[in-house]
Amino acid sequence: MIRMVDLIERKKRGIVLTDGEIRGMIQAYTDGQIPDYQMSAMLMAVWIRGMNDDEITSLTLAMAESGDQLDLTSVPGTKVDKHSTGGVGDKTTLVVLPVLAALGVPVAKMSGRGLGFTGGTVDKLESIPGVRSELTEEEFLRVLRDVGFVDAAQTKELAPADKMLYALRDVTGTVDSIPLIASSVMSKKIAAGADRIVLDVKCGSGAFMTEPGTARELAEQMIRIGKLAGRTTVAVISDMNQPLGRMVGNAMEVEEALEVLSGGGEERLRELCIRLAAEMLQLSDRCCKTGEEAAKEVERVLSDGSAKKKLYDFVEAVGGDSSFLDHPCIPAKYELKVYSKESGWLSACDTAGIGNAAALLGAGRSRKEDAIDPAAGIRIPVKLGDRVSPDLPIAVLYTNRQETLAAAEELVRNAWSISQEKPELRPVVLETLR
Amino acid sequence: MIRMVDLIERKKRGIVLTDGEIRGMIQAYTDGQIPDYQMSAMLMAVWIRGMNDDEITSLTLAMAESGDQLDLTSVPGTKVDKHSTGGVGDKTTLVVLPVLAALGVPVAKMSGRGLGFTGGTVDKLESIPGVRSELTEEEFLRVLRDVGFVDAAQTKELAPADKMLYALRDVTGTVDSIPLIASSVMSKKIAAGADRIVLDVKCGSGAFMTEPGTARELAEQMIRIGKLAGRTTVAVISDMNQPLGRMVGNAMEVEEALEVLSGGGEERLRELCIRLAAEMLQLSDRCCKTGEEAAKEVERVLSDGSAKKKLYDFVEAVGGDSSFLDHPCIPAKYELKVYSKESGWLSACDTAGIGNAAALLGAGRSRKEDAIDPAAGIRIPVKLGDRVSPDLPIAVLYTNRQETLAAAEELVRNAWSISQEKPELRPVVLETLR
Repeated sequence: MIRMVDLIERKKRGIVLTDGEIRGMIQAYTDGQIPDYQMSAMLMAVWIRGMNDDEITSLTLAMAESGDQLDLTSVPGTKVDKHSTGGVGDKTTLVVLPVLAALGVPVAKMSGRGLGFTGGTVDKLESIPGVRSELTEEEFLRVLRDVGFVDAAQTKELAPADKMLYALRDVTGTVDSIPLIASSVMSKKIAAGADRIVLDVKCGSGAFMTEPGTARELAEQMIRIGKLAGRTTVAVISDMNQPLGRMVGNAMEVEEALEVLSGGGEERLRELCIRLAAEMLQLSDRCCKTGEEAAKEVERVLSDGSAKKKLYDFVEAVGGDSSFLDHPCIPAKYELKVYSKESGWLSACDTAGIGNAAALLGAGRSRKEDAIDPAAGIRIPVKLGDRVSPDLPIAVLYTNRQETLAAAEELVRNAWSISQEKPELRPVVLETLR
Repeated sequence: MIRMVDLIERKKRGIVLTDGEIRGMIQAYTDGQIPDYQMSAMLMAVWIRGMNDDEITSLTLAMAESGDQLDLTSVPGTKVDKHSTGGVGDKTTLVVLPVLAALGVPVAKMSGRGLGFTGGTVDKLESIPGVRSELTEEEFLRVLRDVGFVDAAQTKELAPADKMLYALRDVTGTVDSIPLIASSVMSKKIAAGADRIVLDVKCGSGAFMTEPGTARELAEQMIRIGKLAGRTTVAVISDMNQPLGRMVGNAMEVEEALEVLSGGGEERLRELCIRLAAEMLQLSDRCCKTGEEAAKEVERVLSDGSAKKKLYDFVEAVGGDSSFLDHPCIPAKYELKVYSKESGWLSACDTAGIGNAAALLGAGRSRKEDAIDPAAGIRIPVKLGDRVSPDLPIAVLYTNRQETLAAAEELVRNAWSISQEKPELRPVVLETLR
C-alpha cells in the first residue's frame, strides 16, 4: 500500500518518483483511496518541482490504463491520431480526417466538445442535421470500417484518472504545468488506441500556450513521452495569434472546412490542413515519402473531390443529412456588422476575446452544461496585416440571442489592435518538431 | 469574496500575499468556505516558496483571531508566557511557573498533551491524584488570582484555524515548514493572551528541529513575528540530544521537578529551568535587571522553598492532593533494568527513540485518543559522556504493560551509541536569541 504522504514528502524535496510509485498513486487515486487534499498537495509539488521524462511517461501510461482503452486491433495497419491543443476557428479535423481516409489511411478519432474560448469538433459535427456523435463501440468501429474514418465523442470511460486530476487541477492552480498538460494529452491519445500521433500545438493569443518557447517546450515534452511510450509523435506548432480561417462558429466552420475540401479555402487554414494531413500520412503505413510528396498526395484528394466525398459518406453513416453539406448554412435571427474603431493596419488580435465573443453569441460554452447554438458565430473577413478603416466591417456577428450582441460587438472590436505601421506577420506553421 | 484559486496561483509563483488576502483566506477556511484540497495546494506552495515576515505575521494574527481569545486584562501587569517546541523529559514548566509566581509575576499558561515521542505538561499534572486540567474560564482566572499562576488544558477554542491547518499539514507533507511552524506556535500564544513570550526551542535528536541551524532559523522567525505583532519574544535554544533530566514519564517527571523546586535536581535540568525563569522575569514588569540578577532571584525562590510552596498551592486549588507531592511516586507492576551492550563512553543518543519507548510503556500516546498511564516511564541514571559497562544499568523501565517491556528495552538499549573515545559535550543552553 502506497503511503501518499511519503510520496508527497519526496516530491516536495525534488526527489524523483519511481514508476511503481506513480502507478500505485494513480491507481489508488482512481479507486478513491487517496483524498483530493493529498493529491492537490502532490500536484502543487509537481507544478513547482517538475517531473523528469521517466516520471511523466509513467504518469501518462498510468492515466491511460486507469479506465477503458479502445481496442483498434481489428482495424488493419498503424493507427495515426491527431490532437489539437485547442484554438479559435480550428476546423482542421473536419478536413484532415476525410483526406486521410481518401488516401486509404484509416483514422479513428475521439473528439471533445468546446469549453471557454475554444471550440470542439463534436459540436461542429453536430451542427449537421441528424449527425450523432455519441456512438457505441460497435457503431464506432463499423463507421471506421465502412467510411475509412470516424470521429465521435468518447464512447467509453477513457483515462478517468486524467478527468479526475484535471478537475482538481482546475481549482487548485495547477493547470499550467508542462508535465501535467503533456501527460494529460498523451494519456487520452494512448487510451484511444493511437499508435502514432500528430500534435497541433497552438501558440498565441487564442491558445493556452501564448509564447513560442512554452509551446515548443510542451511539444518537445510530448514527443519525448511518445518516444518512451513507443508512440512516435510529431508536433506542428501553429500560429493562434488570430482566428484560424474566416469563420468561428459551428455550422459556419463546417462550411469553411468544405471550402478546403472543395480545393479552395482560406490560405492559412488550407496550408495548416495540408501540413497536418501530410505529417499523418508520413507516419502511416503508406510512408516512405518526403514531406513534399505527402503534401502533393493530400492536395490531389482535395482537388479531385475524393476527400470531400469521404465527409459526405461519414455524415450519412452517422445518421446525418449529407445534403446539408451542399449549402451548409443555418440562418440566425440577428446579424450585426462590426466596424473598426479607426484606420490603419491590423497589428494584433486578442484571439481568445473573439472566441469568448463567439461563445457569448451561442457558439460555445462557459460551463460544461451550456447548450450550443449551431447557427451562432462570427465571420471575419480580415487578417492581421490588412488595412482597415471605420467604413468597412471587420466582422459580422450571427446569433439568435439579441441580448448578447452589444457585449460581443464590444469584445470583437476591442480584440483588434490597429497601428499606423504595417506589422510583421507570422506564418501559420511556426515549426515542426519530430 | 476571496477567490482561493487566484491566491494559490500567486503563491505558487512566489508572489507575496497581502494581509487582507491572508486574513480573508484563513477566515473563509475556518468558516468552511474553502475546501481542504485548495488549502493543501496552498500549504504546499508555501512549503516550497516560503513566506516573508509580513505574510507570516498576517497568518499568525489571522489564526490567533480565528476563534476565542483569552482575555487576561483583569490580571494586572504584563503577561509573560512560555512555550516549548517539545522534547523528551521536558518538565521545565512545572518548575518555571511556580518560580515566577513566587517572584510575584503571574503566569497564565495553557498547555498541551503529549503526542508521539514528546510529553505534555497537562498529562504530567494529571498524574497528581485529583488534579483537574479542564478548567472553566472562571476557574482558570480564579486559580491565577489565588495562586499566582495557572496551567491548564485549553478552556476555549483557541486558534481553531491552526488546529484545522495542523491536521491538514500532517497528512499532506507540509509539517516541516518554518513559516507554518512559527505561525502555528505564535498564534496559540497570542490567542492565549500573552503579551511577551519566552520560547524554549528544542534542538537535537529528541526534537522536531534536529540541527542548530534550523532551530535558530525557527527561533529568529518567531522573534520577528513577535516584534511585528507587538509581542516581545525571546528564544532559548536548548539541547535535546539526550533526555532532559533523569526521568521520562508523567509522575516521575513531577518527582524530578520537585527535586529542582527543593533547591537540588539534575544539573542540566536545573540550569535550563533557571535560564527560562530568568528570561521570563526580565520580560515581566519586574524587569530592569541583568540576567545574573534575575537568575539569582530565581535561585533564591528555589532554595527558600517559596516556589515549591506555589506548586502545592496550585495543586490544592485545582482539586489535587498536595500531600502526593511529598512522595510523588506511583508504583508500577513491572520494572526492568536495561544494560549497556558494551563498555565505553556514551557518545550519542537517539532521544526520540527513548521518548517512543516511554510512550510504549504507557507514558505517552501514539494516537490522540490513547490513555496515559501516570506510573509508566524510564529512569535514566546516565548522561552523554558517561563511561558505561555491561554490568551497570543505563536505564530502568517502569510499566503496567508487561508485553511492552521487550520492545522498549530494545529501543532504549539501541538509543545509545557507545564510543571508545570521550565525546565532545554540548551545554544545555545552546544560545539565547532576542
